[in-house]
Amino acid sequence: MMACCGGGLCCQCCCNEGDTRTPEELTILGETREDEDEILPRKDYESLDYDRCINEPFLEVLEGLDNKKARKYEAIKWILVFAIGVSTGLTGLFVDFFVRLFTQLKFSLVGQSVEECSENGCLALSLLELLALNVMFIFISSVLVLVEPVAAGSGIPEIKSYLNGVKIPGIVRLRTFICKVTGVLFAVAGGLFVGKEGPMIHSGAILGAGLPQFQSITFKKIRFHFPYFRSDRDKRDFVSAGAAAGVAAAFGAPIGGTLFSLEEGSSFWNQALTWKVLFCSMSATFTLNFFRSGINFNKWGSFQLPGLLNFGEFKCVDGDKMCHLWTAVDLAFFVLMGVAGGLLGALFNCINKRLAKYRMRNVHPKARFIRVLESLLVCMVTTLVIFVASVTLGECRDLVSTNNNTSTQGSVNEEVNSTIRRFFCYNNTYNDMATLFFNPQEVAIHQLFHQNATFSPVTLLLFFVLYFFLSCWTYGVSVPSGLFVPSLLCGASLGRLVANVLKINFHMQVYAGTFALIGAAAFLGGVVRMTISLTVILIESTNEITYGLPIMITLMVAKWTGDFFNKGIYDIHIHLKGVPLLEWETEVEMDKLTASDIMEPNLTYVYPHTRIQSLKSSVLTRAGEQRRRCQSMKSYPSSELRNVCDEQTAVEPAEEGQDILQQMLERRHVPYPNLYPDQSPSEEWTMEERFRPLTFHGLILRSQLVNLLIRGVCYAENQSSASQPRLSHSEMTEDYPRFPDIHDLDLALLNPRMIVDVTPYMNPCPYTVSPNTHVSQVFNLFRTMGLRHLPVVNAVGEIVGIITRHNLTYEFLVAKLRQHYITI
Amino acid sequence: MMACCGGGLCCQCCCNEGDTRTPEELTILGETREDEDEILPRKDYESLDYDRCINEPFLEVLEGLDNKKARKYEAIKWILVFAIGVSTGLTGLFVDFFVRLFTQLKFSLVGQSVEECSENGCLALSLLELLALNVMFIFISSVLVLVEPVAAGSGIPEIKSYLNGVKIPGIVRLRTFICKVTGVLFAVAGGLFVGKEGPMIHSGAILGAGLPQFQSITFKKIRFHFPYFRSDRDKRDFVSAGAAAGVAAAFGAPIGGTLFSLEEGSSFWNQALTWKVLFCSMSATFTLNFFRSGINFNKWGSFQLPGLLNFGEFKCVDGDKMCHLWTAVDLAFFVLMGVAGGLLGALFNCINKRLAKYRMRNVHPKARFIRVLESLLVCMVTTLVIFVASVTLGECRDLVSTNNNTSTQGSVNEEVNSTIRRFFCYNNTYNDMATLFFNPQEVAIHQLFHQNATFSPVTLLLFFVLYFFLSCWTYGVSVPSGLFVPSLLCGASLGRLVANVLKINFHMQVYAGTFALIGAAAFLGGVVRMTISLTVILIESTNEITYGLPIMITLMVAKWTGDFFNKGIYDIHIHLKGVPLLEWETEVEMDKLTASDIMEPNLTYVYPHTRIQSLKSSVLTRAGEQRRRCQSMKSYPSSELRNVCDEQTAVEPAEEGQDILQQMLERRHVPYPNLYPDQSPSEEWTMEERFRPLTFHGLILRSQLVNLLIRGVCYAENQSSASQPRLSHSEMTEDYPRFPDIHDLDLALLNPRMIVDVTPYMNPCPYTVSPNTHVSQVFNLFRTMGLRHLPVVNAVGEIVGIITRHNLTYEFLVAKLRQHYITI
Repeated sequence: MMACCGGGLCCQCCCNEGDTRTPEELTILGETREDEDEILPRKDYESLDYDRCINEPFLEVLEGLDNKKARKYEAIKWILVFAIGVSTGLTGLFVDFFVRLFTQLKFSLVGQSVEECSENGCLALSLLELLALNVMFIFISSVLVLVEPVAAGSGIPEIKSYLNGVKIPGIVRLRTFICKVTGVLFAVAGGLFVGKEGPMIHSGAILGAGLPQFQSITFKKIRFHFPYFRSDRDKRDFVSAGAAAGVAAAFGAPIGGTLFSLEEGSSFWNQALTWKVLFCSMSATFTLNFFRSGINFNKWGSFQLPGLLNFGEFKCVDGDKMCHLWTAVDLAFFVLMGVAGGLLGALFNCINKRLAKYRMRNVHPKARFIRVLESLLVCMVTTLVIFVASVTLGECRDLVSTNNNTSTQGSVNEEVNSTIRRFFCYNNTYNDMATLFFNPQEVAIHQLFHQNATFSPVTLLLFFVLYFFLSCWTYGVSVPSGLFVPSLLCGASLGRLVANVLKINFHMQVYAGTFALIGAAAFLGGVVRMTISLTVILIESTNEITYGLPIMITLMVAKWTGDFFNKGIYDIHIHLKGVPLLEWETEVEMDKLTASDIMEPNLTYVYPHTRIQSLKSSVLTRAGEQRRRCQSMKSYPSSELRNVCDEQTAVEPAEEGQDILQQMLERRHVPYPNLYPDQSPSEEWTMEERFRPLTFHGLILRSQLVNLLIRGVCYAENQSSASQPRLSHSEMTEDYPRFPDIHDLDLALLNPRMIVDVTPYMNPCPYTVSPNTHVSQVFNLFRTMGLRHLPVVNAVGEIVGIITRHNLTYEFLVAKLRQHYITI
Repeated sequence: MMACCGGGLCCQCCCNEGDTRTPEELTILGETREDEDEILPRKDYESLDYDRCINEPFLEVLEGLDNKKARKYEAIKWILVFAIGVSTGLTGLFVDFFVRLFTQLKFSLVGQSVEECSENGCLALSLLELLALNVMFIFISSVLVLVEPVAAGSGIPEIKSYLNGVKIPGIVRLRTFICKVTGVLFAVAGGLFVGKEGPMIHSGAILGAGLPQFQSITFKKIRFHFPYFRSDRDKRDFVSAGAAAGVAAAFGAPIGGTLFSLEEGSSFWNQALTWKVLFCSMSATFTLNFFRSGINFNKWGSFQLPGLLNFGEFKCVDGDKMCHLWTAVDLAFFVLMGVAGGLLGALFNCINKRLAKYRMRNVHPKARFIRVLESLLVCMVTTLVIFVASVTLGECRDLVSTNNNTSTQGSVNEEVNSTIRRFFCYNNTYNDMATLFFNPQEVAIHQLFHQNATFSPVTLLLFFVLYFFLSCWTYGVSVPSGLFVPSLLCGASLGRLVANVLKINFHMQVYAGTFALIGAAAFLGGVVRMTISLTVILIESTNEITYGLPIMITLMVAKWTGDFFNKGIYDIHIHLKGVPLLEWETEVEMDKLTASDIMEPNLTYVYPHTRIQSLKSSVLTRAGEQRRRCQSMKSYPSSELRNVCDEQTAVEPAEEGQDILQQMLERRHVPYPNLYPDQSPSEEWTMEERFRPLTFHGLILRSQLVNLLIRGVCYAENQSSASQPRLSHSEMTEDYPRFPDIHDLDLALLNPRMIVDVTPYMNPCPYTVSPNTHVSQVFNLFRTMGLRHLPVVNAVGEIVGIITRHNLTYEFLVAKLRQHYITI
């Protein structure tokens, strides 16, 4: 009964994400065992599978696909993309509407009370009123995050990771969406120094992931029959579109949103996808504009309003020929401001990183309500600062300078002037500190950009310092919280300060709004370190193409300066979460390593025709044990550097049911007869025997194998493999994204003498590399093609190892390079 | 003397582009033998090599590279990118300045003469004056194109092909640059219906390709020692930046330019590259703005002016609350206009294609001066039409409606009003036809976008029809000629017509400028079928983000409508040139084919250690013969479908100088001992013997092999391969991009018994695919990684074929699929 068929090999995935601990807890576990400062990528985060698996069920689908069906499929995609855009726009509208409502209620209530109390001296009462409202809002928001911890924070790190190709449990679930959207609404209304932009992007991404599935894991009843797009590939494309729509809705920047998605996510530039992403962004932007124009200004059918974050129009007064938004001389100052922004951003990130680590160690392991208490504490301190600073630290400034405008700026200034605060200031003056603090953040940004009346330098400086530290403390608290608006406001006050100094002390002719804008860009750039997409987002938000050069130069300088000290805030938080993110490129030095240096050589493999008995003894039962090993999170012990968890393959003897088709193929395309004796792997095998090389035939995932067994795909010894039941493509993908677990399989029920033919269901020709391929080439292939497993096959077609995301993370490569130098 | 080393294989490229016939001539030759309507991709166009070849000389460079050097290298790149941007901006300035100068001179001269003659009746004299000037300009332009025929046309098809990865001789040469820039200047000044945008993009790309090389093939004396960036990979990156700068300078659209380059060229999204491309675009835009503001308005240091093509500011009159740039209702009309634009664009392309084919058959084979005569004929007809239409077909329209504006639009209208023409119209009226025809095209577009006084519907229609046919005739004439401005003008007149009809006949409140803009977008979109980059370019040119949605929808509808009938104009011309362009994706149906179906199975290979004798007998001498075969251009004879020209490999016996290093490698990473007898290939071999499979070791290009032989890299039989002289990386790349020809090699001088060890110089681990890989996966890998050769290696590591660009063109795949259906 010797099998003359090729020694076949199918790799397989063993690690399931069914653990109940939160990511933070696991990271802590990993961290406590490791060096204090080093958080290593977690082994249980896996890659999304962007590569298409063209196996027999897929080819069957292909066979039945004519041009008409293909066109229908394409049309469905466009409709879905449109739906994602519209619903993201509506989500933005919802958040905006309620934030506006609550904030207006709050400020009018408290503002009135302050005006009254400034005579009666009952300011404490006003403060209590404000405090009570804010605490209530933040309590709701914080409790929502308790329900779904993934909803905390801005969500951009999570989306960045997802688009980078990492599967993180829970981030695109409906429950997360609800908690995030409602949570951010109350967080912003509660007066915390947080923005709603990051959460908007996250919400858009969830809508992108969820809508095309027509089912929900949170609400089991939501389930329609819609058997399309059940793959990581399609899902990731839709998430790209959704995230772009989120940016587009938040900033009114459809092009910037598209670029954001592409920059973070796209493996290769795909015109068809780009076009859909832009369409989705545009849909979101203009849905929002349509409804806002209608609801807020009763101008239905007009689309003139920009996104949620509106920078207003930068414009010189007509007739003033001396006025320039900026000149060549100003560019020098912008560069300096870029340096300052980079430095301050690095400081911000450094403090926030320490805070986050402190929280991971001292807050998160404790009972959950401690987190709520922290949020409430932050809320109370913030409220107190706002109130006390407004009442005591402001200066009374003239309003006169505002009024010598021509009619052109009238409409802008009308809006700006209606939001100034007069706390204790009379005779046509206003309280500048209160104007900044006692308003929604967007209004304060507007004030700094467009209010002609100057703010006092002392006020601006104080405002910056208070805001800087409070927003730094706030980011990381357990509420949904964006970072864009606080950073912009922080930076704008600094930019305005520079303009004031230049104007008053050096008597230069500068346009203060431009300096505020550049300051905002510099600080934001210093914090988040985004490049091209942020440039475009800011250009679109100002609706002024001539700001392109100064914004780009400022962001460039800020990024370079900041990168000198640490990473961007999102990358820091991604790192703290232990996400195995892949950078853009490997460092030049890494090319001293080859695929054989970094691959995982210990494989688990199966023969194409496998007895269930052997599966039981190796692949299936081993899984539980390996999972336990995974959870212990022994990441990268530098002594061993073994990739124990992610991928394993099991040796199995080839069975006699040989595929006749293979015999018919031309000789040069089929593998050589198996060079190895047909023998079951047993515990007596030496390590060498167990891991000796075999000709590589294809790749099968553990989830697919379990699926086959559950559906009884196998044949009896005395029959041919043709008698094996056939699964269709939709049966194979029906359970996406949660495939049945190994433990759902009652091994005792399976006849151990039956044989499984996996060849129709494996991926028969994944991309492979040779062991001598240099790391940069391996990396490019892996990242660009969005792979999950990359088999390493030697010159005679034997598999010698496998490369996954974990073998390509920066930390792993550095460790390997160190090892390489030691051996040399 | 049996060699126990692995049967090694190195593929090699044999086809040189040294032929003297022009592309058109060759295509004709190919075409006359083929079906009248089918022009097949030419076999002599090869891929650029974007993949890095990490061989020993490269690793040596890598070894010597520390962080400081890497940073220096990066800094040089940034400086070069900046230099490319600035010089592209200056080129734009140069063209703009002289076009302006010549056009102003011409129009003032002739305009004056007309004013005088309208009283004296000497109009014929004015016409002659105009005719003489135009003919002179066009003659110069046309003669320049005779000097360098590649300079004809817009250049966008060529740049698209280059960025797609096709090496086309001469398109990035300095001589082309000079002819193109000077030629387009005179072509525009000569009053032809051509734009300068396409040629600007081409010029930018040439600057990108040329500047970092610090040498010129045209002027041999320009040659500095600058041994960087001597590879297709770096060159293509710089060309991306240059092309983007060209778009940026032409339209004042740095983001659009970046997207254009990425859309056309980028294999995978690379943040570092994107950021450099954007920087380059910004440099170009703002260099141009800086100098134009200084020279034209004496406002040095201000950057307020947009690009060469300026759409002016779209703005509602302040205080007019009823005025909207566009509303939801208008969108419906925009969709209809998109359909119309698509239809008209398809008609335009269809006519132009027929014209181009006619030219290829009847004009190009004749003496070259015939082309000049054609240009002059077009010029004369155009001049005659302009003159006669202006004088006889115009209507006198009131200027009154222009003057009831508020001050806001004053500045815009001042500019617009100064360019109206009053030919034979008195009493505060003006001649509308003359205003459109007797002005530079940019001014006419401005008129249509911003002139409040209406144009008569009859005039607009007549203008459209005349312009449509004349510009269609002009594109393809042998002068440098862009297509953007004529298309925009054509479309704008149509859009304005729609607005007029809606206003007058249906009494709707519409903003005429928006309709003109949308019309322009629709027609341009119908002609060129660009998607996201064109959207962004137009948004940036209008500097109005709220136009995003209507422009996108219009372009989308126009593209879909047009694609129903034929391809975009650039794709048509690329096709006519026989360029083997790779599309974005393969069609779904193509996945029925696998790599083994489409690969070229007839290979030429060499063993790693090869006797010069055998090289002579197979690889080197065969080359000349093959080139002859190439030139006969037997493209894709459907009976045979053999890829005779591009890639061949030669069998060679392994020599005894075995690399000791290989023995030291771990067993599983080295190939099996050679399974084949060591035998020289001889003429007695059967085909089967000649092409039997061998273990694949790496890839070497013919140019590299010739380089090795010229530099005497070989060792004597009785020595070890270690005695072979070693070449450094810079020696290997010194002659880039023109490597020594095989015929530069005097074969008689080489000792036939010497042995060449090619292993250090070959690419040891190119990406490979298995024969069963489906076409979509092969295609993605090939296109995304920018490959030139993709070896097909079977399950046991034997090479069975090779895939190049020609095996992946649409035409080839379709032919193969047809064959596939027949065999089934």
